[in-house]
Amino acid sequence: MIVVLHPPVCIYEKPMNTPRQFRLGAFIQATGHHVSAWRHPEAQIDAGLNFQHYKEIAQMAERGLFDAVFLADSPGVWGGTPESQFRNGKVVHFEPVTLFSALSAVTEHIGFISTASTTYEEPYTPARKFASLDYLSNGRSGWNVVTTSNENAAGNFGLEHHPDHSQRYERAEEFVEVVKGLWDSWEDDAFKRDRESGIYFDPEKLHILNHKGNHFAVKGPLNVARPIQGYPVIVQAGASEAGWDLAARTAEVIFTANQTLQDAQAFYADVKGRLAQYGRSPDDLKIMPGAFPIIGRTEAEAQEKYEFLQSLIHPDVAWDILKRYYKEVDLTQYSLDDPAPTLPTDTNNNKSRLKLVNDLATRSQITLRQLYLSLSTARGHRTILGTPESIADQLEEWFSNGAADGFNIMPPVLPTGLEDFVNLVVPILQKRGLFRTAYEGHTLRENLGLRRPDN
Amino acid sequence: MIVVLHPPVCIYEKPMNTPRQFRLGAFIQATGHHVSAWRHPEAQIDAGLNFQHYKEIAQMAERGLFDAVFLADSPGVWGGTPESQFRNGKVVHFEPVTLFSALSAVTEHIGFISTASTTYEEPYTPARKFASLDYLSNGRSGWNVVTTSNENAAGNFGLEHHPDHSQRYERAEEFVEVVKGLWDSWEDDAFKRDRESGIYFDPEKLHILNHKGNHFAVKGPLNVARPIQGYPVIVQAGASEAGWDLAARTAEVIFTANQTLQDAQAFYADVKGRLAQYGRSPDDLKIMPGAFPIIGRTEAEAQEKYEFLQSLIHPDVAWDILKRYYKEVDLTQYSLDDPAPTLPTDTNNNKSRLKLVNDLATRSQITLRQLYLSLSTARGHRTILGTPESIADQLEEWFSNGAADGFNIMPPVLPTGLEDFVNLVVPILQKRGLFRTAYEGHTLRENLGLRRPDN
Repeated sequence: MIVVLHPPVCIYEKPMNTPRQFRLGAFIQATGHHVSAWRHPEAQIDAGLNFQHYKEIAQMAERGLFDAVFLADSPGVWGGTPESQFRNGKVVHFEPVTLFSALSAVTEHIGFISTASTTYEEPYTPARKFASLDYLSNGRSGWNVVTTSNENAAGNFGLEHHPDHSQRYERAEEFVEVVKGLWDSWEDDAFKRDRESGIYFDPEKLHILNHKGNHFAVKGPLNVARPIQGYPVIVQAGASEAGWDLAARTAEVIFTANQTLQDAQAFYADVKGRLAQYGRSPDDLKIMPGAFPIIGRTEAEAQEKYEFLQSLIHPDVAWDILKRYYKEVDLTQYSLDDPAPTLPTDTNNNKSRLKLVNDLATRSQITLRQLYLSLSTARGHRTILGTPESIADQLEEWFSNGAADGFNIMPPVLPTGLEDFVNLVVPILQKRGLFRTAYEGHTLRENLGLRRPDN
Repeated sequence: MIVVLHPPVCIYEKPMNTPRQFRLGAFIQATGHHVSAWRHPEAQIDAGLNFQHYKEIAQMAERGLFDAVFLADSPGVWGGTPESQFRNGKVVHFEPVTLFSALSAVTEHIGFISTASTTYEEPYTPARKFASLDYLSNGRSGWNVVTTSNENAAGNFGLEHHPDHSQRYERAEEFVEVVKGLWDSWEDDAFKRDRESGIYFDPEKLHILNHKGNHFAVKGPLNVARPIQGYPVIVQAGASEAGWDLAARTAEVIFTANQTLQDAQAFYADVKGRLAQYGRSPDDLKIMPGAFPIIGRTEAEAQEKYEFLQSLIHPDVAWDILKRYYKEVDLTQYSLDDPAPTLPTDTNNNKSRLKLVNDLATRSQITLRQLYLSLSTARGHRTILGTPESIADQLEEWFSNGAADGFNIMPPVLPTGLEDFVNLVVPILQKRGLFRTAYEGHTLRENLGLRRPDN
């Protein structure tokens, strides 16, 4: 039920006694998530800069009633080794907010969650662009707040070195505070637009931020009215200790990477447990681990699909994957069939991902080959393989056992990987009562079951 | 004739013996250009954040075969006096590149020229977003390069003061150079995407910028392929001495403000005359003065429309207009019927506009009332009033007498001001052979008759 107070403020009231249901994001990185997806015959080979492709994908995800499509981003090109960099099929691509603005014009319900860095911009600019997208899409925007782990970005912004991890998180915290303050520049009903008196807005309902902090001095106001959703949905992906705490304070959705049910449960319990100290309830934050699904009509077909994908990896790309994690380790003495050595964890990189990869490498004493093969699918996210029923089972297991509120689906190859999920897995989830059969609300926030923040 | 070399590179060959024709931009600032447009009963009162309105406008301009729609921009809110600021109907609005991205999905031919500041961003970010829009729109983007004259922007970016005029221009010059360098990161045919060999791009065709200058150090490469147009069309609006020279070196379109044929001719001759020293030909730069048309079925009806619009201005808004130009002058001793005093010109503001306003004030010894009335329409741009035939005459006069290559049309009120121009004036221009009857090319650059820059 939608109770209209006055435009554009709607409050969505969840019907009573609705069973808890999945949230689903479609993580639509160009050509698909597998490291060599672009070589697959089903891949849209120029996906990164092909609008018609993304239009097809977004409309497909909307047909599948996904909450949102999601894109990662970094203001730079991922490096890679000189021997492998020209094998990277994701090296050029749309800037996500411009792409999502265009997609908002050809969809009606699906949300748009875009990554944007707090390390390489000033807060006024992303505050504007996300508020602008929220109006263009009628309340369907979300911001995945990242501090950027791509060290190559620094050189594009006049810096010798990527700022260190703790400095990035301190800046991120103040950045989010400033952006929210700018979104609150205008009260929801500030604009009277009274032709007769000539008064366009009520000056009492304009609030000048006047922020002065350690990293930013921002006067305001924003030149966009308060977003339709109050704030675009705040998403986080980083999962280091600093990240967990920032998430518990500010995030409304977390895209996390976990390999095992136990790890996912531990993460879920920890973060949900931290919410109370910030005056938040467990429902105020949705935890959505990534899942890379390989779907076959039979288990054997899924296994075959998996092996075909893995066969597309050139050896130089395999070594490049390993070198990204073994940054300061000399791997020349190793062959791919040697046991994977212990990883360095004390770096300025994506800390949580390094721990995950280390766990992966040491949990069952795997070889370097097995390690790169498990990272080539979804860079540390969970790979699930099987028939549509089995995929649904594997998702349901985490959902029903305190490990997830939903999932960020990472199709191996696009468009077919998403198409299979929408056509084959979604109907099973719906039959089990685990997923919606129609959008509940009008905005991303309403569909995710998140409350609209007060000014 | 379009000669396809290989995608996405097309070279447009202008048919021989085509007479010189108008270029037309539609300057679609929210609610229309008149200072009190939003109070007009025909105005879309919430235009600034209304996507459906802009969709209607963009499709209307495309129906009228306009080259482009255009938006001004500033990363801040225009101040105004405390007594008048809440009467400003343009105070909140879309960020232009996000809006144009959305509009690119619902149009096919029209170009999108967006203003973006070189003073308050780092070059990597706008390089990305304009390249991204160029791909989304299939080669229809343009960048109006400004140094920002809104002093209120400084406070949103941690600065105590707006940087001074010469510093802004020095930075702008390097900024444009860096952005072009980033657009040249990849050769047009760098992406082989060869599934068989697994080679996505030819590393010989990747160029790392490694720029180190006075204002910026930018490594590159850009994470977007070379734009469809090579570079989005480079537009400039500033017309101070520093601006003229920057324009002669880098601009492909100039949106200028001139009141008289003589001034427009002088500007046209001067800037076109400077091109040779930079190895450019007069055709490489299109000069398009702004024109604010008031169209009536009769001259009397046009005059009535003009007077009705002017009657919408609240006295506090009138004084605010005057105070913007008379910044350090105490106006309390004046009444609106006193002769306009001389303006200060040595400020850190928009220098060319101040000179224009001063000329306006002193040319015929007008009163302060006459001065604000002539600025309330189009802030110093030329106002043209009359029947559709007379409007066409007034445009043709400048076009045929060395004062303009086309015009940036500034509708008084939107959507009706643009609709009248499209329905009533465009057919006359076409009948006179002064304007196209179909789009000539596929990209904005092709329609404007500008060559695609080499890498």
